[in-house]
Amino acid sequence: MSRSGAPLVAIQGERGAFSELAVRSLFGRRARILPCAEFDALFRAAETGRCRYALAPVENTIAGSIHRVNDLLLESTLKVAGEAVIRVSHALVALPGVRLRDVRRVYSHPVALAQCERFFRRNPRLTRVATYDTAGSVRLLREEEARDAAAIAPELAARLYGARILKKGLEDHRANFTRFFALSRDGVALGPADKTSVLFSTRHVPGALFRCMGVFALRDINLLKIESRPIRGRPWEYVFHVDFEGSPKEDRCRNALRHLEEVCDFVRVLGSYPRARTPGA
Amino acid sequence: MSRSGAPLVAIQGERGAFSELAVRSLFGRRARILPCAEFDALFRAAETGRCRYALAPVENTIAGSIHRVNDLLLESTLKVAGEAVIRVSHALVALPGVRLRDVRRVYSHPVALAQCERFFRRNPRLTRVATYDTAGSVRLLREEEARDAAAIAPELAARLYGARILKKGLEDHRANFTRFFALSRDGVALGPADKTSVLFSTRHVPGALFRCMGVFALRDINLLKIESRPIRGRPWEYVFHVDFEGSPKEDRCRNALRHLEEVCDFVRVLGSYPRARTPGA
Repeated sequence: MSRSGAPLVAIQGERGAFSELAVRSLFGRRARILPCAEFDALFRAAETGRCRYALAPVENTIAGSIHRVNDLLLESTLKVAGEAVIRVSHALVALPGVRLRDVRRVYSHPVALAQCERFFRRNPRLTRVATYDTAGSVRLLREEEARDAAAIAPELAARLYGARILKKGLEDHRANFTRFFALSRDGVALGPADKTSVLFSTRHVPGALFRCMGVFALRDINLLKIESRPIRGRPWEYVFHVDFEGSPKEDRCRNALRHLEEVCDFVRVLGSYPRARTPGA
Repeated sequence: MSRSGAPLVAIQGERGAFSELAVRSLFGRRARILPCAEFDALFRAAETGRCRYALAPVENTIAGSIHRVNDLLLESTLKVAGEAVIRVSHALVALPGVRLRDVRRVYSHPVALAQCERFFRRNPRLTRVATYDTAGSVRLLREEEARDAAAIAPELAARLYGARILKKGLEDHRANFTRFFALSRDGVALGPADKTSVLFSTRHVPGALFRCMGVFALRDINLLKIESRPIRGRPWEYVFHVDFEGSPKEDRCRNALRHLEEVCDFVRVLGSYPRARTPGA
């Protein structure tokens, strides 16, 4: 276990964002947090050794993959040490004394704005202002002393910045979860590893993906996820992201990874780590 | 060919959006356009027969899949009659007389805002305001007679709404293409069909996807794309979107689709249509 001490963990966005909930679930209350404005800076913080871990959101059950993070996973040498799954619930937050009918502008991250479509359809007078972060939007209200604006953010952010919750559960869908990777330079798993993530791209021949799937199927290895992502700058070429049960400590998994290299152009093992449970599932 | 007459084609967003370029490439100059504010309305316009076709963006080579459209493809009974691929180039557009240094706010669709990150990093004083459409943002400038705002939109939109182009090529990546489906109730292909799109979900058993891939590989059918998408409301369950070469007019493709139904929980053939060329490729 790497949970000893109080590791410094980088997150994208301000304190009080959903990433902070993920940090708490993996590293507990004592972990210290380094906020980063952008995903590039988040990865750099762990790559340069400035912090021990970078906490990166990889997919959301409503919005799908977080593209920029997946691009960075491909480019970076960081490895996955753990994963966390957080339930996403959006609150409408404003400064004390501001009422719902005063609000004209709503700040939040574009993904959060998109997840509250029903709310905006019911309130067409509201202007949606895209910002870099959910919790950072609450801080922005403070800085501007905004009396005609609100933010969409986790409830935790309202508490942290002394704001008030005007409305809870703004999200269109309740089955809204975000999955995070804890990334580190050494990739030492945060507990007994029973799940592995790998990226690969296939050769451009018929049946290429069939052969890749065979690597796992012929060894009775259970796939937990497969996703294809366009490769930036190479239109209509894709990299596959596969999660499977097991870790290279088992012979069949080690053999499968060796076999995968035989049939692929490119293979990168992101890491092996303890599988996270979905809250309430 | 269904290109006879001047079909009414629904698009999401205002006239002058990238969707209009896709309409022109598939149906020519004579097609009439019905702008719809949201994707739901776009699908409804074709489902109810109000218009002959709905033009829906399905994926972008930088941003990835357009999630809401993919969800609607799964729910709707509309079929794919054709596809178009459009090169996406973003311009900064403002009313005549407005200079770059006057601009404080920039309106656009969240995806367009996200594709111009480098521009916003270089111009940190600009506030990004998310709207429902690129071209609609230019119309908004007109309605507000905005002297301190600009919009990110296609150059075509500047011409249509009598605005000026302050800057061209704002997009971070030049290999930026969007793929559109032309959807109709009957799904009659807009020309000789040589490509087929299908959605399916697998049973939750090891090797399920391997068997699905085998359906195509064992018949030497070339896959052009495979993508998994989370199913809303069923966390960590995925539906697969596969495009393959050929159409059910060929025995092997018809047999493959029948075989796919044997090994899947759910199969929906979206349609067979003429494959589009990527501009400049």
